[in-house]
Amino acid sequence: MSAASAASTAPSSPRLDPMFDKLHIASGATTPDRRPSIDTLPPSPLASGKHRIAVIGSGSWGTALAKIAAENAARHSDQFHTTVNMWVREKQVNGKKLTEVINKTHMNQRYLPDVPLPANLVAVPKLADVVRDATLIVFVTPHQFLPTVINDLKRAKAIHPGARAVSAIKGVEVEGAEIKTFASVIERDLSIPCSALSGANIALEVALEQFCETTIGCPTHNDSLLWHAVFDAESFRVQCVEDVNGVSLGGALKNVVALAAGFVDGLRLGGNTKAAILRIGLKEMTDFCLEFFDGAQRSTFSNESAGVADLITTCYGGRNRKCAEEFVKSGSSFDDIERRLLNGQKLQGTATAEEVHAFLQAHGRVDGYPLFERVYQIAFKGLAPAQLVKGL
Amino acid sequence: MSAASAASTAPSSPRLDPMFDKLHIASGATTPDRRPSIDTLPPSPLASGKHRIAVIGSGSWGTALAKIAAENAARHSDQFHTTVNMWVREKQVNGKKLTEVINKTHMNQRYLPDVPLPANLVAVPKLADVVRDATLIVFVTPHQFLPTVINDLKRAKAIHPGARAVSAIKGVEVEGAEIKTFASVIERDLSIPCSALSGANIALEVALEQFCETTIGCPTHNDSLLWHAVFDAESFRVQCVEDVNGVSLGGALKNVVALAAGFVDGLRLGGNTKAAILRIGLKEMTDFCLEFFDGAQRSTFSNESAGVADLITTCYGGRNRKCAEEFVKSGSSFDDIERRLLNGQKLQGTATAEEVHAFLQAHGRVDGYPLFERVYQIAFKGLAPAQLVKGL
Repeated sequence: MSAASAASTAPSSPRLDPMFDKLHIASGATTPDRRPSIDTLPPSPLASGKHRIAVIGSGSWGTALAKIAAENAARHSDQFHTTVNMWVREKQVNGKKLTEVINKTHMNQRYLPDVPLPANLVAVPKLADVVRDATLIVFVTPHQFLPTVINDLKRAKAIHPGARAVSAIKGVEVEGAEIKTFASVIERDLSIPCSALSGANIALEVALEQFCETTIGCPTHNDSLLWHAVFDAESFRVQCVEDVNGVSLGGALKNVVALAAGFVDGLRLGGNTKAAILRIGLKEMTDFCLEFFDGAQRSTFSNESAGVADLITTCYGGRNRKCAEEFVKSGSSFDDIERRLLNGQKLQGTATAEEVHAFLQAHGRVDGYPLFERVYQIAFKGLAPAQLVKGL
Repeated sequence: MSAASAASTAPSSPRLDPMFDKLHIASGATTPDRRPSIDTLPPSPLASGKHRIAVIGSGSWGTALAKIAAENAARHSDQFHTTVNMWVREKQVNGKKLTEVINKTHMNQRYLPDVPLPANLVAVPKLADVVRDATLIVFVTPHQFLPTVINDLKRAKAIHPGARAVSAIKGVEVEGAEIKTFASVIERDLSIPCSALSGANIALEVALEQFCETTIGCPTHNDSLLWHAVFDAESFRVQCVEDVNGVSLGGALKNVVALAAGFVDGLRLGGNTKAAILRIGLKEMTDFCLEFFDGAQRSTFSNESAGVADLITTCYGGRNRKCAEEFVKSGSSFDDIERRLLNGQKLQGTATAEEVHAFLQAHGRVDGYPLFERVYQIAFKGLAPAQLVKGL
């Protein structure tokens, strides 16, 4: 590794805003193996002295994250129990149990085709078995399954009292006039600290080890040391920040802005307009979190992968953008487009736009977020898409 | 105009960072005509009490800006002399003088085809005539012509002593180990205050009145009031900031990052990697300005059209990105690609990458900017493009 990259790990000038680098652990590479030694990791609550990782979820994103965690656990068997359990809901596939197929082929052919998984990543069908004696639990289920998962875990009293969690679940949960992040729901319901992981991370590209970055919002410094050790890899760069809420919200609100970006594409407006929409969208995302969420930091949005980088990827690729473009071009409803293009799956952007609108209305703050409001009005209230930018 | 958009002009919450909205004049629309009344504009140094606008430059970007300025001057003839002079280097076109063709057809067919120009925009062949009694002078020539233009203006003693300038010239000027913005060169050589205009502004889209935004960095509040009045329009939203250097540098450094983005595209890496490159590039752009330029503000890059928005547009469209993609795919040199794709014109990104490298080397700071350095090494020193992200 060159001196050039080493230098980037330290604040390079006294004039740099310390916030930019605060809690970024090894944000540039200094050695081929940048993980902290076991001496620097917080102690495990297990008698073994080692940490044990479990992953709840085995979709494409869950499997990609489990792959990285298992590779890191194997590489650092002095710090981690090598075996990483991954929860897989049992199914029969060609007369065989899915968990057995995964554990024999070391592939998750359905969700991450043709990507070899490490042998120490073990598919486990029973939730209580997955998390037994786990000290580091990754939640990465589809969001609608989370309440059931939490209930099952509570009923089974399966969570180690010294465990920590991280949520890589996208979206937010709306409870009346409240918006809850999944990290806060997990923390509240399971009484363990919960961090949040989000970034410009298309699962397949992550699994193929294309260079990318992610952000983990961590409630304490110890959480950041541990989650960094679990996930940071040569092609998956982890930056830790303190702002758990900002990291969680960035991954949800970006989808509302992506609808606006798709409307711009559908209207066949050019790069100027799209860039303006992204800029205004990033501003509203930032303002929203600063106004309504404790500990939110402007820099999470302006500097981190979970903010500006994820927003860009989502507004140039991604299905929210695509469906919004189709909405303008076809004149169909989103329900119809979801049926046609998503096989009936629901878009996150439209759901979030509706939730954010209801939330802002309950707080008398709709006027403060004109772009979010335009997106809602266009998607649900028949406002003409061309009105997106009028007087914005 | 709705209450929703009106609200966006004022800080919407006491928790907002005041920097975000500082000196943004009417950044959201409140009325169909948002320009300040003459009472609020700083007084003109002319006996008429009115300001007079002149535009030096008549390429696509110059003509697009001149069109907006002339429309605003006509709309506010109480504040401005209606006639706006635009400098056009005289040529013969089909046996006729180019200035006469423009003034008769009210089109600049060569650089902004089929876009009607206002009748009060007048093409003038002689530089001294263009700026006579002008109090607001827009510099928008190709950067290589600026020294000659400045010399001619000085020799002719043509500049009104009470005039103000704004530079919309892209790029920077390197003088030994110094990097100068064109705004600072104009200010120094002509002894008049010079602002800088930059943003996500593809000229043709601006001329076609597609919604977009721009940023003007202004040395004083009076400059910001005047330039906002000259340029702000319903589809061309102007935000003024204090950071003249940041606005100038953003428009130059973005092209270095666009080369990196093009390398990513050429390597057929996905959206994750490209978003990471943009994030790291934005960080290096910010750090560079904070480290080396007076008055530079992080927010210029994270919040403004001249920062993040222009970077995005340039990294997804634009010729620097395109030629860098071709560089990777074809294995040709940039010289060869410029000959083939740009008719021999030179790329700004490669020139700036070289200048920034020389500057950083002279300051012993190459190590602090690993992405800029990789781009330079790949473009000029034979580093394999795949090394762009290795250990970054």
